[in-house]
Amino acid sequence: MLQNDRIKEYEGDMFGELVASGRIWKLNEVTLCSPCVPTKVVALWNNFHALSEKLGKAPPTHPLFLIKPQLSVIGPDEPIRRPKGYTGKIAYEGELGIVIGTRCSNVSVGNAAQYIYGFTCVNDVTAIELLNEEPDFPQWCRSKGFDTFGCVGPVIQRDFDWRTARVVTRLDGVERQNFPLSDMILSPEQQVSLISHDMTLMPGDVIACGTSIGVGSIKDGSTVVSRSTA
Amino acid sequence: MLQNDRIKEYEGDMFGELVASGRIWKLNEVTLCSPCVPTKVVALWNNFHALSEKLGKAPPTHPLFLIKPQLSVIGPDEPIRRPKGYTGKIAYEGELGIVIGTRCSNVSVGNAAQYIYGFTCVNDVTAIELLNEEPDFPQWCRSKGFDTFGCVGPVIQRDFDWRTARVVTRLDGVERQNFPLSDMILSPEQQVSLISHDMTLMPGDVIACGTSIGVGSIKDGSTVVSRSTA
Repeated sequence: MLQNDRIKEYEGDMFGELVASGRIWKLNEVTLCSPCVPTKVVALWNNFHALSEKLGKAPPTHPLFLIKPQLSVIGPDEPIRRPKGYTGKIAYEGELGIVIGTRCSNVSVGNAAQYIYGFTCVNDVTAIELLNEEPDFPQWCRSKGFDTFGCVGPVIQRDFDWRTARVVTRLDGVERQNFPLSDMILSPEQQVSLISHDMTLMPGDVIACGTSIGVGSIKDGSTVVSRSTA
Repeated sequence: MLQNDRIKEYEGDMFGELVASGRIWKLNEVTLCSPCVPTKVVALWNNFHALSEKLGKAPPTHPLFLIKPQLSVIGPDEPIRRPKGYTGKIAYEGELGIVIGTRCSNVSVGNAAQYIYGFTCVNDVTAIELLNEEPDFPQWCRSKGFDTFGCVGPVIQRDFDWRTARVVTRLDGVERQNFPLSDMILSPEQQVSLISHDMTLMPGDVIACGTSIGVGSIKDGSTVVSRSTA
């Protein structure tokens, strides 16, 4: 548990029984990994009014999603690796991430919040030139599923009020995205409820809530920082 | 290990060190589960010449795939469950399944066979009316990702010669699919090589090689049997 620049160490199951070990670490003594190990990342397309209007798309009534595999996930400060043989553009997409805390299936919107462990940040990286390479089959899973293409973290914030927060993405220090989460089409609770009707969600699974305007490409060697902040 | 109607019991890691326990089971004494627990199922679209021609689609040069989550996988004789709230057609798709034996990434076609543990059967079940429900976003992961929509097994055959084998699918005893695996556009070795350039494949992961002609819908209560046989 992060408290200012100190990390209080716990032992056990992050989503179950936890016991404080009594050990405290300084933040600069440790290397942060992804704060959870999802069995899958469910990543939404077209979930912000501003982007939906810009693209001229109707707002969906059910999450439109692809699945990113577990091995796409990396933690903060880990490098996004260019896929071997792919020379095209690689895009960043700053997003809010929902972290599931409890296995759930077919839950109502009213009950969804109790299955949310907390919120994190996601960079839903995309090999954008592969997406529509084949006109008959948009390659959502391929273009977004490469190893290291799911940046998650650095923390999971448990008492996070998404309604008043914004996603800010900086590329080499320059702000490129800054959008309010209140502009989401389907709320986190609606997403958890609706997706839990499509598949059982497991502790640690991440729902990437979709991005909004300001998506751009990352030049090799650049640094992307995406934050959800009040 | 299945030998006629006897199962020789092993202990350890199926993809690593194994020791025969000395115990033998009769096939009719046990309940068969899925023969592996994939971290992901990579399911191909448009990988047979006959179906490709019927649909008027160009044969792909790279696997066109979606990802089915781990919890979609069930074993033989387990029921496919109709998703809550979905009243539409549910389709069967009989397919060859490749089971990965060794973690692999960026492998060549020439080396791909050594990462294949064996072959199995897959019914790549689809809530077909959801696929194109939203014109802007074909819902491949959603329509094929429901719990119980990935039937795998009953066995993994290690010395399987796919070149001379056919996939046969029977619906309530009536043959509905019977197609030769030699009609595949991308061979199992090509699939493993190309997909391993898109993501690291793990032991137990399954590649569903795509279906061919004869896909149809399953009425509630029906039984689907799909086999790959010489």
